[in-house]
Amino acid sequence: MVINSPSTFIGIQGDGYISFGSGQPDLPPPQEIFEVMKDYKEFKYGLIKGQLHLRKALAEQYPNSTPHNFVITNGASEAIDLVLRVIFLRGGKKVLLPKPYYYYYPHNVQLAGMEPVYTQLVNGKIDIEDFKKKIVDCSAVIINSPSNPTGRVQDIDTLKEIEKICEELKVIVISDEVYKDLIYTRENYLIQGPHVVTINSFSKTFSMCGFRIGYFWSLDQDLVNKVVEIKTHTSMNTNILAQEMAFAATKIPREKIMKQISIWEERRDLLVEGLEELGFDVWEPEGAFYLLPKPPEGVNPNKFVEEMFEKHKVITYKGEWFGAPNRIRFSYALDKEKIEEGLERIEKYLKE
Amino acid sequence: MVINSPSTFIGIQGDGYISFGSGQPDLPPPQEIFEVMKDYKEFKYGLIKGQLHLRKALAEQYPNSTPHNFVITNGASEAIDLVLRVIFLRGGKKVLLPKPYYYYYPHNVQLAGMEPVYTQLVNGKIDIEDFKKKIVDCSAVIINSPSNPTGRVQDIDTLKEIEKICEELKVIVISDEVYKDLIYTRENYLIQGPHVVTINSFSKTFSMCGFRIGYFWSLDQDLVNKVVEIKTHTSMNTNILAQEMAFAATKIPREKIMKQISIWEERRDLLVEGLEELGFDVWEPEGAFYLLPKPPEGVNPNKFVEEMFEKHKVITYKGEWFGAPNRIRFSYALDKEKIEEGLERIEKYLKE
Repeated sequence: MVINSPSTFIGIQGDGYISFGSGQPDLPPPQEIFEVMKDYKEFKYGLIKGQLHLRKALAEQYPNSTPHNFVITNGASEAIDLVLRVIFLRGGKKVLLPKPYYYYYPHNVQLAGMEPVYTQLVNGKIDIEDFKKKIVDCSAVIINSPSNPTGRVQDIDTLKEIEKICEELKVIVISDEVYKDLIYTRENYLIQGPHVVTINSFSKTFSMCGFRIGYFWSLDQDLVNKVVEIKTHTSMNTNILAQEMAFAATKIPREKIMKQISIWEERRDLLVEGLEELGFDVWEPEGAFYLLPKPPEGVNPNKFVEEMFEKHKVITYKGEWFGAPNRIRFSYALDKEKIEEGLERIEKYLKE
Repeated sequence: MVINSPSTFIGIQGDGYISFGSGQPDLPPPQEIFEVMKDYKEFKYGLIKGQLHLRKALAEQYPNSTPHNFVITNGASEAIDLVLRVIFLRGGKKVLLPKPYYYYYPHNVQLAGMEPVYTQLVNGKIDIEDFKKKIVDCSAVIINSPSNPTGRVQDIDTLKEIEKICEELKVIVISDEVYKDLIYTRENYLIQGPHVVTINSFSKTFSMCGFRIGYFWSLDQDLVNKVVEIKTHTSMNTNILAQEMAFAATKIPREKIMKQISIWEERRDLLVEGLEELGFDVWEPEGAFYLLPKPPEGVNPNKFVEEMFEKHKVITYKGEWFGAPNRIRFSYALDKEKIEEGLERIEKYLKE
């Protein structure tokens, strides 16, 4: 079996497997979103940019916004694809990616016809001097804070400086904030500016991954219109029933959502402590539900991923898929019992 | 108000408007697809290529097929976009389109980075000699039979010749058969061959437009894999609940579906006869629910569309949007009463 991408593990579950791989929250969605189905009857084409009441509800969450600043998409990933296609059509050639990066980004950039350029993160943080050097050649940058795969959150000062630099250079900031409701250290800082595109999703906060409702927000109306134009000729409206579910999700009180954080914190602490005891070098986790540690001295990260899967039925992801060949990516989107069992298997493997 | 694309009319309904524009069937979907929601509970990511049981059900409908020959997409239009992107990545430069064409196709081709080339239809039928001349330069051709906007069906001999020519030249045939269940003159002929990609959808047959479930079928496994690869990094899995609805639709007996045809035939006859009485020159309608007639002598088709909308609240589409500047496109996806009322308003307009 060739283990060469996260897709290798798709569909592998149960049967004694422990997965530290998937970015799929295991907590069920709130009951409210299923209520929608009770007397649902609509079936016709919806607006390409998304149902008005959902965009109205979102406009209340974002500053200086109207429903016209939003497009509802098939998950955050379609939003990223659409925005990159527009940037390419506007003449874009290069897109800056902080590295380690979310596995999809380089593919997204290349699929849209552009070239990824990298700025190396230092302990998971943006090195603003290197950022400044690299950004001048680029038409856009993708910021992902909190980050998959690092679990790190960028400092507010850094984000403000990026806002300033990109506004001056007229570089588009694509801010992928799908983990914005999962920060352990502070409130989310919403990057803003005339060239900012914020990507978000109902998948992570509301465990709605399979329903594929994402959206983007931008004050650049020309960009919004161009995205709608492309979507008109590609996927058309996003599933209308899933949009009703997302609308129901917008009505859920924030306190209820924030309660989940304590569940994530327990899992995080369990995994971080367990891995550190086993000699892994772990960055302080600040958000999302990922870790990207260095394995103990002498352990080859790729061999670890392969052998843990093949011999111990434990799924982890190779850091090299995320631009970090010396590291291993762990998700903690699984319950404490499984985390404990997984740690025991890792301990056993390391002792062998 | 500038009337420059079908999008102009999006959201305009009720309030005395009669729409001969939209390709949205007004008949409701079968009850079976709503039953699915009763005890639906899944919410996790699904397979990128689509749920296995749905692809299995489709494999039973297509010759020599396994579930691996299918990808479930966000409507037929996402399937077309994905296939065109793969053709571009394989080095494709030009795509042949019979003209008049479905409004989206030239946009789809250009968005994928390629150039549309046209072969003029004669009375809505493919001119095989011209086709042969044009196809040699192209990497693919899009066939749409039954056709939106012409309502015409290509002859089986023509389709077989296209199969042969394209197999010899290794040109990909993208056969958009979303109206395959709506042919008045014969059974559908499924274009086949090693380089054929069949596009289909649950939108038209089952009135599920808003749920966005389409799919494509191909025996070219490399092409299927490449489409899945792009979808992995763009929209990911198609909405999993809508896939269950589509699966329910595959269980509906064909006789039940075919009953709808008589409703379409009544509407078609009413509109054709009405337009002919008013002096329109109508091609014999063979499939789908569209007509693309020439207006009576002396009537400017663009002015007709603009004035019928602005003065008489009747929506029709300009033929020029479909590559037929001397014609007007009518859909008859509306009930008989409205068709009659629409015809009366047209008569009034023509008399003025």
